Amino acid sequence: MARVVVDVMPKAEILDPQGQAIAGALGRLGISGVSDVRQGKRFELEVDDSVDDAELEKIAESLLANTVIEDWTVTRVSVEPAA
Amino acid sequence: MARVVVDVMPKAEILDPQGQAIAGALGRLGISGVSDVRQGKRFELEVDDSVDDAELEKIAESLLANTVIEDWTVTRVSVEPAA
Repeated sequence: MARVVVDVMPKAEILDPQGQAIAGALGRLGISGVSDVRQGKRFELEVDDSVDDAELEKIAESLLANTVIEDWTVTRVSVEPAA
Repeated sequence: MARVVVDVMPKAEILDPQGQAIAGALGRLGISGVSDVRQGKRFELEVDDSVDDAELEKIAESLLANTVIEDWTVTRVSVEPAA
């Protein structure tokens, strides 16, 4: 078993109204110094060792991300024994 | 300027219907070997160097995460010069 993280973020050229709303809220809350916020998604998958990187990329590309407007990255992370 | 990533995930004891829907869809698409999927959020913030870790934790805790049902982590990442 391995843990895989798939991060999905809006492409740089795509407007991100959720992130802009957060940036605006930070200003209204009196927090300065944050110039830009972008919001995306993070998926944590528990996968068998039989699932290879090509299959993970297929999952990310076809199911988790909308590749027209989003970029994705797949990262294998070690599972902490005592977490 | 620094880039800060805030990951927000549903707590382990909280049901995650979005993640369960994805896990179910993977099965229907004929992809086996993925036993669990959890969906959370990823925020990428561009912050001035004046913003310290305590302020970032305040932002994550008060604005980006619902700490009743979500865990959050703050990570500073280096900004790639040519990205």
